This record gives sequence, C-alpha cells and structure tokens, in this order.
Amino acid sequence: MKTVLVLGAGRSSAALITYLLDYAEKSKNKVLVGDLSYEQAQAKVNGSAHGRAIRFTIEDEPQSSEAIRSADVIISLLPPHHHVAVAKYCLAHRKHLLTASYVSDDMKQLHQDAVEKKLLFLNECGLDPGIDHMSAMEIINRIKQHGGKPKSFESFTGGLIAPETDPQNPWRYKFTWNPRNVVTAGQGTAKYLYNGTYKYIPYQQLFKRTTAIHVPGHGEFEGYANRNSLSYITPYGLQEIKTILRGTLRHKGFCSAWNVLVQLGCCDDTYRMDNVAGMTHHGFIESFLEAGAGSARQRLARQLGLDAEGGEMQRLAWSGFFEDEPIGLPEGTPAQITEHILNKKWKLHPDDKDMIVMWHRFVYEHDGEEREIQSSLVVTGEDSIHTAMAKTVGLPLGIAARLVLEGKIKSTGVQLPVHAEMYLPILSELKEYGIYFQEQQRIL
Amino acid sequence: MKTVLVLGAGRSSAALITYLLDYAEKSKNKVLVGDLSYEQAQAKVNGSAHGRAIRFTIEDEPQSSEAIRSADVIISLLPPHHHVAVAKYCLAHRKHLLTASYVSDDMKQLHQDAVEKKLLFLNECGLDPGIDHMSAMEIINRIKQHGGKPKSFESFTGGLIAPETDPQNPWRYKFTWNPRNVVTAGQGTAKYLYNGTYKYIPYQQLFKRTTAIHVPGHGEFEGYANRNSLSYITPYGLQEIKTILRGTLRHKGFCSAWNVLVQLGCCDDTYRMDNVAGMTHHGFIESFLEAGAGSARQRLARQLGLDAEGGEMQRLAWSGFFEDEPIGLPEGTPAQITEHILNKKWKLHPDDKDMIVMWHRFVYEHDGEEREIQSSLVVTGEDSIHTAMAKTVGLPLGIAARLVLEGKIKSTGVQLPVHAEMYLPILSELKEYGIYFQEQQRIL
Repeated sequence: MKTVLVLGAGRSSAALITYLLDYAEKSKNKVLVGDLSYEQAQAKVNGSAHGRAIRFTIEDEPQSSEAIRSADVIISLLPPHHHVAVAKYCLAHRKHLLTASYVSDDMKQLHQDAVEKKLLFLNECGLDPGIDHMSAMEIINRIKQHGGKPKSFESFTGGLIAPETDPQNPWRYKFTWNPRNVVTAGQGTAKYLYNGTYKYIPYQQLFKRTTAIHVPGHGEFEGYANRNSLSYITPYGLQEIKTILRGTLRHKGFCSAWNVLVQLGCCDDTYRMDNVAGMTHHGFIESFLEAGAGSARQRLARQLGLDAEGGEMQRLAWSGFFEDEPIGLPEGTPAQITEHILNKKWKLHPDDKDMIVMWHRFVYEHDGEEREIQSSLVVTGEDSIHTAMAKTVGLPLGIAARLVLEGKIKSTGVQLPVHAEMYLPILSELKEYGIYFQEQQRIL
Repeated sequence: MKTVLVLGAGRSSAALITYLLDYAEKSKNKVLVGDLSYEQAQAKVNGSAHGRAIRFTIEDEPQSSEAIRSADVIISLLPPHHHVAVAKYCLAHRKHLLTASYVSDDMKQLHQDAVEKKLLFLNECGLDPGIDHMSAMEIINRIKQHGGKPKSFESFTGGLIAPETDPQNPWRYKFTWNPRNVVTAGQGTAKYLYNGTYKYIPYQQLFKRTTAIHVPGHGEFEGYANRNSLSYITPYGLQEIKTILRGTLRHKGFCSAWNVLVQLGCCDDTYRMDNVAGMTHHGFIESFLEAGAGSARQRLARQLGLDAEGGEMQRLAWSGFFEDEPIGLPEGTPAQITEHILNKKWKLHPDDKDMIVMWHRFVYEHDGEEREIQSSLVVTGEDSIHTAMAKTVGLPLGIAARLVLEGKIKSTGVQLPVHAEMYLPILSELKEYGIYFQEQQRIL
C-alpha cells in the first residue's frame, strides 16, 4: 500500500483529492490530506475509507517531517514560497514531490540532489503552468516528427466565467483566482521574441498591445503578454524559433477597459492613499483625475481620449467606479482599493461557473510550405466549488501522482511535464474528464 | 580666524568656493577645500592665500575627523548619502553643517543632538531645494503680514539652456545636472493637493499632465509634478492651503516628447536589455514597437497616436533615435541606453550656457478679494564651468556660511532656510549677484 500526501486543502484541491481518493479505492492505496485547518482537510476527505485528514503546518518541523516521512508521493498546494521547505523534507526522507507552481531558483538548485536520490520533483504540473506545457509539447514534437520546423509559437490562457454566468457583466470576468494577483498583473516589463527580435512591453503599454484570438464556437478573445516568454525556449526545445509569445487570455474588450485602471494608477500597490476611510468609489477615481469641467466619467474619458459612452467606460460604470458608495476599507493602497471595489461585483457566487480558455498558435515550415496549427481548450466549471480551475489544476497533478506511484515516470530531478512519458498519458487521461483540445490546421 | 571646510570640489563647487575665498580675504578667515582628488581641490583654491586644498575621503575616519575638527563651519557637497556621516563628526567636534540636499530621515534624527550642542545643521540651502524655499517663504510671510490668506501655491524649477546655446536643439535642454536622475525622473507616483483633494499622478500620466507657465520676457514653459508636494505644507506654515503643487520646469513641448520615451519603456532602469553591444539607436526603439508596416518613426507615431512629423517625433529624430548608428555600449538598461544616446547631443560643450528658471504662483484671499502673485527667477550661466546651476546652488550656501560665521543665525538643530533670519539676508545678498525675482500681482 502506498500513500499520497496532499498539502493544502483549499479552494483548488477538491478535484485533485477526489481523483486521488477514487484511485486509492481502485489501487488499495491511501490519501493523506494535510491543512492548517483540520476541519477543511476532513471536509475534503469526506469520510472516505481510503483517506485521512491531518493538521499540517510547515512551520512545525517534527509534524512536517513525520507527515512527509509517512507518505510516498507528496503533492504541495501550499503557497509557492513553502515548496522548497517541503522539497527538503522530501530529500531527507526520499519522497517524490509534485507541484503546480513555477520552478523557483531555489527549487532548481535541488536538481542534482534529487537526481542522486532518484527522486522526481515535478513542478508546473497544473493548468498554466501545466496543461499549457503538455499540450504545446505534444504539438511541437508532432510537428518535428513529421519533419516540420517550428517558426512561431503563441500561447494564451485565461480563467474566465462561463457564458451563462452573470450575463449582464460586460467584463465577462470574475475573480476565480487570487484577486490581488489579478489586480497587480503585468507590472514590470514583458519580454518576448518576434521575428528574431527581442521585444519589450512596459506596463503602460501592456493592455494596449493585445493579440486577437478567435476560438471556434466560443467567440472572440484577446491576450496580453506575460512577463517572460523566453524562458520556455530551452525546455520546449525551440532554439530555432523566431517568434515566441505567452500571455493571459481575456474576453474581447477586457484589456482596453482594464487599461483605464492601469493608466490612472489604480493598480499601484506601492503606497497607501490618504483618507481612505472616508472615501467613495467616485472619490477614489477622482483622486487620479485632472480637475476641470464635467463629471468624473466625462473627464476620465477626455483625459484618456476615450468615448464617455464606450465599452471601457461602460465596464467601469458597471463595476460602480463612478458611484458615491463608501469604499468600506479603513486604509489601503490603490491596488487594494481597486480589488475591494471590483470584488463587490466580481466575487464568485455559489452557482457561478468559471471557464478556462487556453489557445495555442503554431506556425511551422513543412516541405517548403508555411503551415499553421491553432489549438484551443475550453473547460467550464460546475459551480463555485467544482471549478474548471480546480479541475484543470488538480487533475494533471493527480494523474502525475498515479504515474509516479505506478513507476511509469523514469525522469528524476527537478522537472517540468515536457517529456512524452508525462504529457502523453496525462493528456490522454484528461480527455476522459472532458479536458481536450480542438485543433485547426491550414496552409498559410 | 575662522575656517570653512568645503567637502567636494566638483562641478557645482566653483561659485561657492570663489565666494568663500573672497569673503575670507575681507574677513581674514580661511577656506579649506577637501576632495577625493587633491588636484581638483587645488584647482578650485586657485592659489589663493586664504585657501588650502586637502585630500578628503569620508571613508578615511582619522582624516575626516581631523579635517572637520580643524574647521568651524562644514559645507558638504558630497553625495547626499554621506551627509549623515559628516553630521556625526560635526556633532562630535561641535561644528555647524550646511548642505544643499534634501533632509533625509537619518538627518532628521540628529535634530535633538544638534539643538543640545547649539549647532545648526542647515539643509536644502541651494537652488531647488533652497532658493525655492526662501523665495516662497518671503512671499508667504508677506501675504500673511498684510492680512492675506494663502489658498494655492504652485512652484516649478528647471535647469535648462540659454536661448543662445544650441539654437537648433528643439528640446531646449541639455544635461546640466546628473543625467541618470534626469532620465529616471518621475518614476513612482506624484502626490499633490488640489482644491482640498489629494491627487495622485502615476508615472504613465506624469508627462501628460503638465502645468502651462509663462515667464514674462522669457517665453512659454511647462511643469510636471514632483513626487511629493505635500511635505512642505508644515515647514511653510501652509496648513490652511487648498492647493499645493511643486514640480520641474521645462521648455514648452519638452514633456510630450519625453512622454514618448516614458510610454515606450525607454527610461526603465530595472532590467538589462539583450544584445546591446550590436544594437543601433533605431534597433533600440524598434525593440519597444509593435511589428507592422512602415518605418519605426511611422509605427511609433501610430502606436502612440501622434503626428509622425509633429513636435514629439521631431525632437526624437533630432536626438538620433531613428538612426542606424551603433549605440556604443557593451550592455545596459533601457535608461542607461537612453541616457547614452541623449548624451551624444545633450552633453554640455565648453561654451554652452545653462539657464535656471524658477516660477511660483500664489493665490490668496485679501479683503474679500482673490489675488494672485506670480514670481519668477531666470539666471543664465557664463559657460559650462561657471554655470547658473553652480552659482544658484553655491551662493546660498556661501552666504549662509558667512551668516553662521558672523553669528547672525540663531536657529539650531536640523533646519531648512524657511526662517526670516536666513532667507531675508540670503535673498538680499543674492540680488547683488543678479539672482532676483520678477513679480506680477493681479486681482483675479
């Protein structure tokens, strides 16, 4: 009998733990779920005979060490900065580790130790990062195997809401993930490669320089660039690529409206504003506007050269930014206040369904022709607990854990799921859960 | 016989040291000039019988302690982060200290010690900060003494070039001060008060939200807001003020052209670009542009919604940003590269004359009327050594040193020159050097 230990029983863990409990039943294995809150862990185990809840605090060394020692594979859903601490226990007790988080520099440094102990530390094995890597690698290797030469790769992923959820919401968006990260997204400079030239997009241009995306059967979307698109050239084996751009996907019209908040300075998280306790939504916007004639909405439109009745202003108005409603925070940075105002209408309600959209576009040379593959994934959640996000993050981790337990992954060390022994069985099993890509090919 | 010790014999010290040597001759006092470079210190002393050059390194403790012990008043022109070290020697040896730099938090903490030892640590006693404080306080106190009530205060200062210098230069600007600070100016959020409301301007709006400034006899200028305009409300005694805005002054048209560099991300100093060694000016701009049809100049104009032949593009073209000229740096951040390209045409030539422009606008209530005072100062340099900048920074320090030596300043502790015992004699003596304000008053 083998044991999988899941660390963290929060929002994103439901689909993963359900998968692992089902698998444990079939395989006579066991699932241990550890969380700061014993009750939360217990709720996720949900009385299964194959599961057990424990209280887990990474700061409690004897407890952490013992929990990790008692399992065979560890899945860490803890905040990313705790992964290295978990990894060190895994090294000490010779356990495999899986996460859905980006590989940190500290994690990278454990590669040689993990290799020597024949351990797999598999990271970026969720949705984004995760399914994006796997689905891209499947296509890249297919193109190469047929003698094609990849020239361009663009890839965008977004966590949105389903068409039937909140149909009046003109943003077609709610907070389905860490709201703070959504509000501060894109600060810094995005870097990508276009036609062999390094390109840089500062924050102030990011939401203006979008890529138009059409997903057959699902409509029009747009994407803005992520911070560093270049870091996957090597792991993807795309050293000859001329264009590579990875980014975040939103419904069409989102970015130009969001850009208004960016241009005003509403997403700045570096200073606390004055008089927040007595401030209204309208007063918040006013503090970023030039004085002059007309309403805040009119002056804002004028200041940014927009139509006062256009889509950007409609979205901001829908979110209540021009209302004389008290913000309701005692203090805060502009980003905290913006998050708080948005959350009044962007909070996920129990019956809301989220929707994940992932889109890749490859251009490659084949027999002297230039060809294109577009590939897209759309997954809709069931409700605010059984979200598409939890499913698409959790299932790849669960399947990877199964593969590890069954000895089907030979790679060791700090890895991404870019190897066929990982992505082929994971993508194949994801299909059984309705998680699969639609592909269109054409000659350019 | 008393001794003034000047620490730092760089570009900005000439006028100060000349003033002190002249005064030393009349008063039978002495001037000690310390610099990392003995030769540079000696050049500034210029053979005067009343001066002596010494080698000075703040890191050399015995040398620093002895130099400061041997003098009566210390003027530190060292980089601002060294002032506190100097101040501590001043406390140890009971010496007065003068600087032209902003009071740091560390400096503030020495206030009580300085008071107890009856020492004056006078900071912000140059041009900006310095003459701006003194000239503003003279007007504020005059308004109050006549029963007026200040409602609004705006103040802008800039270091520019004289009309006869580089007449083809459409920016009407060259680097007359630390170029790095010019390129990175305004990063962060500017904060001011307008009509009783706190206002915030993020970097991406800063060079768009300018104040138009007319200086009689000198033409049209514009100003952008400094980081924090609120910090002088208390020292200026303006607790009732409704509007306060301090900023930087440029020739009309400068800011919208500079804004192009800001919007593109050319002033970002947080990351190193790739392939700088092989990059041209044109390639540098290209790396911030969207791909598409047309020249870089055309695409840039389109991307930012500007006229390809308008003033912004003309200024950038004059600076060579669209040329296929190698940058000539082995590596660099965008800000470093921008500085390097600009410096090819903005470096001060020996005969170039700089020009300082300072402008204040006060609105106040008086006998039920609303009145306005505009006050402006224009000072032109003689050449690239005897600059208006060196003169307007150095003379207030020199005069303050004289007042201290003559026992005419009673204030002790960490101070700004906002007290009449300082600003009245300093402003009065500055007039003898051609440094004086023109004032216009009107009823609104």
